[in-house]
Amino acid sequence: MKIKIINPNTSEEMTDLLRNYAEPLIKNNIELQFSNPDFGPESIECYADEYLAIPGVIEEIIKGERENFDAYVIACFGDPGLLAAREIVEKPVVGIAEAAMYAARMVAPTFSIIDVLERSKYLTQGVIKSYGMEKYCVSIRTTELGVHGGKNEATSEYLEIVKQCRIALEQDKCESIVLGCAGFIEYAEPLSALLNVPVIEGVMPAIKFAASLVELKYKNSKINSFKFPEKKEISGYDTINQYFKSKYENS
Amino acid sequence: MKIKIINPNTSEEMTDLLRNYAEPLIKNNIELQFSNPDFGPESIECYADEYLAIPGVIEEIIKGERENFDAYVIACFGDPGLLAAREIVEKPVVGIAEAAMYAARMVAPTFSIIDVLERSKYLTQGVIKSYGMEKYCVSIRTTELGVHGGKNEATSEYLEIVKQCRIALEQDKCESIVLGCAGFIEYAEPLSALLNVPVIEGVMPAIKFAASLVELKYKNSKINSFKFPEKKEISGYDTINQYFKSKYENS
Amino acid sequence: MKIKIINPNTSEEMTDLLRNYAEPLIKNNIELQFSNPDFGPESIECYADEYLAIPGVIEEIIKGERENFDAYVIACFGDPGLLAAREIVEKPVVGIAEAAMYAARMVAPTFSIIDVLERSKYLTQGVIKSYGMEKYCVSIRTTELGVHGGKNEATSEYLEIVKQCRIALEQDKCESIVLGCAGFIEYAEPLSALLNVPVIEGVMPAIKFAASLVELKYKNSKINSFKFPEKKEISGYDTINQYFKSKYENS
Amino acid sequence: MKIKIINPNTSEEMTDLLRNYAEPLIKNNIELQFSNPDFGPESIECYADEYLAIPGVIEEIIKGERENFDAYVIACFGDPGLLAAREIVEKPVVGIAEAAMYAARMVAPTFSIIDVLERSKYLTQGVIKSYGMEKYCVSIRTTELGVHGGKNEATSEYLEIVKQCRIALEQDKCESIVLGCAGFIEYAEPLSALLNVPVIEGVMPAIKFAASLVELKYKNSKINSFKFPEKKEISGYDTINQYFKSKYENS
Amino acid sequence: MKIKIINPNTSEEMTDLLRNYAEPLIKNNIELQFSNPDFGPESIECYADEYLAIPGVIEEIIKGERENFDAYVIACFGDPGLLAAREIVEKPVVGIAEAAMYAARMVAPTFSIIDVLERSKYLTQGVIKSYGMEKYCVSIRTTELGVHGGKNEATSEYLEIVKQCRIALEQDKCESIVLGCAGFIEYAEPLSALLNVPVIEGVMPAIKFAASLVELKYKNSKINSFKFPEKKEISGYDTINQYFKSKYENS
Amino acid sequence: MKIKIINPNTSEEMTDLLRNYAEPLIKNNIELQFSNPDFGPESIECYADEYLAIPGVIEEIIKGERENFDAYVIACFGDPGLLAAREIVEKPVVGIAEAAMYAARMVAPTFSIIDVLERSKYLTQGVIKSYGMEKYCVSIRTTELGVHGGKNEATSEYLEIVKQCRIALEQDKCESIVLGCAGFIEYAEPLSALLNVPVIEGVMPAIKFAASLVELKYKNSKINSFKFPEKKEISGYDTINQYFKSKYENS
Repeated sequence: MKIKIINPNTSEEMTDLLRNYAEPLIKNNIELQFSNPDFGPESIECYADEYLAIPGVIEEIIKGERENFDAYVIACFGDPGLLAAREIVEKPVVGIAEAAMYAARMVAPTFSIIDVLERSKYLTQGVIKSYGMEKYCVSIRTTELGVHGGKNEATSEYLEIVKQCRIALEQDKCESIVLGCAGFIEYAEPLSALLNVPVIEGVMPAIKFAASLVELKYKNSKINSFKFPEKKEISGYDTINQYFKSKYENS
Repeated sequence: MKIKIINPNTSEEMTDLLRNYAEPLIKNNIELQFSNPDFGPESIECYADEYLAIPGVIEEIIKGERENFDAYVIACFGDPGLLAAREIVEKPVVGIAEAAMYAARMVAPTFSIIDVLERSKYLTQGVIKSYGMEKYCVSIRTTELGVHGGKNEATSEYLEIVKQCRIALEQDKCESIVLGCAGFIEYAEPLSALLNVPVIEGVMPAIKFAASLVELKYKNSKINSFKFPEKKEISGYDTINQYFKSKYENS
Repeated sequence: MKIKIINPNTSEEMTDLLRNYAEPLIKNNIELQFSNPDFGPESIECYADEYLAIPGVIEEIIKGERENFDAYVIACFGDPGLLAAREIVEKPVVGIAEAAMYAARMVAPTFSIIDVLERSKYLTQGVIKSYGMEKYCVSIRTTELGVHGGKNEATSEYLEIVKQCRIALEQDKCESIVLGCAGFIEYAEPLSALLNVPVIEGVMPAIKFAASLVELKYKNSKINSFKFPEKKEISGYDTINQYFKSKYENS
Repeated sequence: MKIKIINPNTSEEMTDLLRNYAEPLIKNNIELQFSNPDFGPESIECYADEYLAIPGVIEEIIKGERENFDAYVIACFGDPGLLAAREIVEKPVVGIAEAAMYAARMVAPTFSIIDVLERSKYLTQGVIKSYGMEKYCVSIRTTELGVHGGKNEATSEYLEIVKQCRIALEQDKCESIVLGCAGFIEYAEPLSALLNVPVIEGVMPAIKFAASLVELKYKNSKINSFKFPEKKEISGYDTINQYFKSKYENS
Repeated sequence: MKIKIINPNTSEEMTDLLRNYAEPLIKNNIELQFSNPDFGPESIECYADEYLAIPGVIEEIIKGERENFDAYVIACFGDPGLLAAREIVEKPVVGIAEAAMYAARMVAPTFSIIDVLERSKYLTQGVIKSYGMEKYCVSIRTTELGVHGGKNEATSEYLEIVKQCRIALEQDKCESIVLGCAGFIEYAEPLSALLNVPVIEGVMPAIKFAASLVELKYKNSKINSFKFPEKKEISGYDTINQYFKSKYENS
Repeated sequence: MKIKIINPNTSEEMTDLLRNYAEPLIKNNIELQFSNPDFGPESIECYADEYLAIPGVIEEIIKGERENFDAYVIACFGDPGLLAAREIVEKPVVGIAEAAMYAARMVAPTFSIIDVLERSKYLTQGVIKSYGMEKYCVSIRTTELGVHGGKNEATSEYLEIVKQCRIALEQDKCESIVLGCAGFIEYAEPLSALLNVPVIEGVMPAIKFAASLVELKYKNSKINSFKFPEKKEISGYDTINQYFKSKYENS
């Protein structure tokens, strides 16, 4: 089984971080490919970023189809372009926000989300609502470190996240923690050990759930909302436009 | 006062339709400019279309800033890119879906939406939810004619819309009609006369509300969610990237 | 175009305040008339007040019909009698609560309401719910100054409102402010300048939106809920009863 | 114990109907008084009717206070003026809509409401929402007979209600019936026997619940929302204004 | 009229507490019987407790049927087994949580719940939701005293409850208090006097409402959800299994 | 890895059905054990059934702990006892309703549920709500075949399910199907092939998700709601009581 994990921003450093963390943990019958678009924003923190990233995500999905991947993971907490991806392919596409929230709810009644920036909160609330999780997410706490806190600041970033987790647990009375950024992938395990509650980032469960969907032979529903886009010209995105044309010719 | 109306798809025919209809109706103290992006899909009927259209909308907003527009209207019923536009500019930006639904609610307790395609319904439901209108929208009825039914089919398109309006009024018991596509702009007035209920398309009220916001000197809240995007590189979108850079330099 | 602005309480001082503020700001093609009922309570702060005010509002609407107004504004934040008014007339009737909340949502994702009295909060929550705004109103903050803080206390009243706005912005993380009383009409502009976020009172946007609805030729839906009341005797309200009778005779 | 049942419209025929039905069924330790306002509309079917009725309801409550009633029932399905009544008195005030819906929910998971007129539906939906019953009311069915179907048409009115109940049970799959008009008081028992499901009108359970609240010594919460109205002049309603004045003098 | 009050845990001390408090207050035309199951947990504070208690509650209901009770009260704030009881019998069954919340809402717009343990909060939230009370319950405050604080600690338990009530009133701005444990039955009246707001425990109103339902001749809807269970073998619960068999034989 | 699948009713025929279907499909690094309680009802179709089944489920979980299972699946669509199980163990416990609904939502925007009996619908609605899925489940369709349609009637049962699926797809416009009974396990794959939409039963995804949670080392949150039950005597359930005692002794 081959799964493609798409980091929706253009930061190869982030893509490497995900690859380095996840690959050793996945059993060898699953082949993972990590990639990022070559156009779009280098981080995703607001609506403009998200919308500028999605065409690149769509292009990565299309490239993936040519290499016959069995499933895709969109590795940014806003699940950017997820529903569009399900229109374009039949293979399962899992977002890390949905995976993290479903996973959290299977081991705890409620969760708080540790988000990157205060400004992203309203965006994150939209993600929460789109999975029916309003009643179970008790708070969004933010670190104000930005998406690219990165390596060398690791200690202070980690300490800030610890602090926000404690506030969420003690003041907001959440019963598990969801990490609201793919860049926090390394922190879930030490935080979980430190705080003694489930601390869940989304990349790993998204890979697991995507693999499960493949094994169960589930495919995206093509009956209505997720049908392939109607025939039309897409200007300015050559790879996408050519793929769309090839699909219309074959149908 | 200068208002820029952005048709988010690349169809100049649609842009002309909007211009030809709206310009004669707007008083001469308001100057309107109608435009569409030069890249993206030629119609918007699904998530992929919408996401591929938004970078072009953002570019049109940025071009508008250079020409000192006082407000913007996004003239596609999904309000694509509306929240991103509010991040990028201080000037009011109004979506035609929000304008149409607010207008409908000021003259009727409930409405039904006449949408273009069955496949767009789930997308439209998302729009409805994002304005808190779930309780007031009693149904979405679709014509299956596609966004570009266009001129020469006008009669059959119109008749199909009449039919769906009647079903919405009689079976679904809605008390007004919202037309879920900018392309239906010409139909609101004859439908309203024919059916004797408010039939509301969004372009005209969006222009009126945008003008009202300008006259009232309202600006987008820049305190948090709608702050200008954080400093970063945007690859592959030169106009946007340059504008972002110029903003960071000036701040 | 002639718009009648009805202050629902019997305080002529309040009516004058609204007239003095609004008239100079409205362009000369719109003629405004400001009035208040000559019976009912002198301020509206609870359910009993509101219900005792509404028959007077209905009478003012009926008087307006005899003078051929094109639209009406109900200038009290509870929008008292708004739905009844839409039953009685075909002309647009706009409430200042709905206008303020729609306006706020067009420039900010969320708002807080600055209300007059703690005791009015539950009433205000009802208003919020009736426009589907529960998810967007992050808090109601109250000043405990009462509706008639009036002129001579202006400084202390204003300072108290400033204080509550700051709490709403800093603690409740709202992104705009809605002023929950017509009597605060003068404060929106200085508060907006001081706090650097949209601060919106409802009278001015209600006038603008009412004018927009008139220009767009929208009328109240008369298909069901907003039909004129069924034929019946209304005892004790002579003006209203006579108007109702004249309507039944003419239909 | 003395309970006053207020029919909010001016129809003495309706008041007699309620008295004649209810009095024989209530045990002799409870004294009932039935009354209606002497001003306002003769039936309540829309917002205007409701608002024109409420000042009369308030006056009836005030008259009741002078006669030392222990509790009040507002006997119209919109529960008009209920929250205002709770501001004015400490004694329990029960609405027939709330009583009927609470009762229905204690014997069935869901209910449908049989309403008088299609035009009243939106108003009834407001009542349902104000008690958190949206999820449990599966439909509102209407008879189109008007509130005053009255005596001589009893047979056809009853048959029409039977028909609507059957539609609600068979098509809408409700599991009990709530009769949405005090005028249907006589029908609950025969309908229940005929249809073999709980059919609940609100007057009788409202009397029982009001008596229960009295026996339990509950009083209206006077801590905030239901405090007596703030001191002010109420013009045009002499009885009410005098009572308010007497209250301010005594406090 | 005979009403059976079932304490769902096996603590006879608790059963005695309820009997001793309630019996003197109920008029002599109503005969009360207080009982508890002889199997299950001795207190109910979590899901496991609740589920282990319910078969015993069902058995007590069945024993009650053999003694021809007219109604049942389930006297634990989670209303454990309430819906199952309504399947098994036609006689009214009232839970103390529903009774307390309906009563609170008839005298106050909102309430807070004083719960026994922090850990029970999520369970209590489920109860609140199942009666549509989410919008009216402003907070759940807990005492951390456990269900069996019991007699000798009475003073400290009462003082802790007073403290939590004050927090709920002052910080959470609730307008009445619901006591979330049958064991708090004695405290409602002194708390109400002390705090001068309605303080409502559920046992007494549940008895009153059950008596009202009996007087009104209401029975559980047997049309669908509350039909008697389909024919089947119930192993390991002899009393229940025999009763089920006797019912199938008689139908 | 060892996973225990608990069929909550006492039907060994059903347990065998699940084992025979699932075992061949699960890879050999996962060891499955299928069991059912030896007390409780032989099928689960209503609240009484569900509550009478749960103590047996709890006992099966406890037996599983003694055999060191890594995870548990509760294989009945009401997810009976799921939250209690999470209190009792640290190991992941997955319900088939939650697994099926999460899986459906990862491949389709909406689903309908094919339920066994009309009478179970209200119960199923409770399950839907408890996972925040109200907005995504467009209908519940029932077959009226009962839980134990069983083997020999396979053809007619299957045809009836096909019929209900078609109604759900065509009339209710669902975009995927969730089978609301573990007994339908064999039908998911042929239905999916026949109808060309995702048809999802819950047992297989529950096993996959449970295995994923184990691989990810997630454990139930023990910070509050899912703590082990407080110390107390559980009468009448010896296995459970002894296990509880052993836990208190060891803590």
